[in-house]
Amino acid sequence: MFVVILSYPQLGENIGACARAMKNFGIHDLRIVSPRDGWPNPKAESASVGAIDIIHNAKIYESIDLAIQDLEFIYATTGTQRALNKSYTASKNLKSDFPYGKKVGIMLGRENSGLNNQEISHANKILTINTNPEFTSLNIAQALIVICYELFDAEIPLSTPDLKLATKDDLFHFHNHLFHELEVKEFFKSEEKKELMKQNIVNLFSRIENLSRTETQILRGIINALSSDK
Amino acid sequence: MFVVILSYPQLGENIGACARAMKNFGIHDLRIVSPRDGWPNPKAESASVGAIDIIHNAKIYESIDLAIQDLEFIYATTGTQRALNKSYTASKNLKSDFPYGKKVGIMLGRENSGLNNQEISHANKILTINTNPEFTSLNIAQALIVICYELFDAEIPLSTPDLKLATKDDLFHFHNHLFHELEVKEFFKSEEKKELMKQNIVNLFSRIENLSRTETQILRGIINALSSDK
Repeated sequence: MFVVILSYPQLGENIGACARAMKNFGIHDLRIVSPRDGWPNPKAESASVGAIDIIHNAKIYESIDLAIQDLEFIYATTGTQRALNKSYTASKNLKSDFPYGKKVGIMLGRENSGLNNQEISHANKILTINTNPEFTSLNIAQALIVICYELFDAEIPLSTPDLKLATKDDLFHFHNHLFHELEVKEFFKSEEKKELMKQNIVNLFSRIENLSRTETQILRGIINALSSDK
Repeated sequence: MFVVILSYPQLGENIGACARAMKNFGIHDLRIVSPRDGWPNPKAESASVGAIDIIHNAKIYESIDLAIQDLEFIYATTGTQRALNKSYTASKNLKSDFPYGKKVGIMLGRENSGLNNQEISHANKILTINTNPEFTSLNIAQALIVICYELFDAEIPLSTPDLKLATKDDLFHFHNHLFHELEVKEFFKSEEKKELMKQNIVNLFSRIENLSRTETQILRGIINALSSDK
């Protein structure tokens, strides 16, 4: 969907963390311009954890020009505003802004100073992540995971495990059981307050989200145990 | 806006990276349960870079119960689906799902195995980040920055908390009270099944939406009444 270009990255650990972040969101194409500590880099390999395939398949370039020459659209990721005439896209808007159908690259710069203006000048747009203005310095892999996350598509519906939900009738039986035992134990102080208290109890148990039938049985087991003569 | 709880984190580097991620998005309250390598941790300090204040102000706890007792709503962050009856919120929906106005904690677990079901049972909801299904393992600080990023700048609508919500500590007292009486009444069939049953009960009561302090008192009154000798 897009290519990640790391320009002059310094620490192998960060390169590995970038690979892992990419794979978490299904991005596989990593290009690296002049990694400071050479290549291959054992620290990048170990930090990538299960994304070692991305490290092994990463392509190494001598210059940013070579790394982006086949691409059709480039975002330059920066933290601070630059004195360049270039439009900005906030990461929150990336999904709607993204030039789908084009061959897109997202560039990230050195850990200590980011991308320089010469590199940014090649970009179609600047991509920025809005942060706490008092602490804007994002780790490179942290910035990258936010970008990959924003562009990730898969909507995996989540459901609780298969369970039989309690019906209202199950709840009514539970209420009756509870109220009967509470009567026996003289819980209700007065007839007039009784209805209000019952209502409060019904209300309370009505708000258990996704109460299952099994759980109503647990509740009834609790009532039986507590009210027994043991 | 919310509290981050790291349960049994292993690597100082990750704790530091979590602090940095938090500060990037204006989150400051870090709680740590039993960090494996002790505390203070020099690696956490150096990895936090400019977020050293968050490391210095982090609070250390011996158990998850102590770490969450003053909170009113808990998200448990998990990668994989769990066999617990608990509803899921995808991080993409977190901003709209978030219980504004409540004292919220977001829990994250150990690097190697995440949160266990006993920890998750205390949560009101499970928070999950949809990833590439073939590579779901997110680094803890990477997961956290995605969450902080999602909630950044969230507009906080005015809430109408006329009622005092139950804290987790109120719930713990309720659990202890109930479990004590259930022991007396020999509710638990066997020692080995006891912990699982307790977990099921904790889980069930964790899902009452907006449980108030008054309502926990009603529940405890019910226990007292049922277990009395009348």
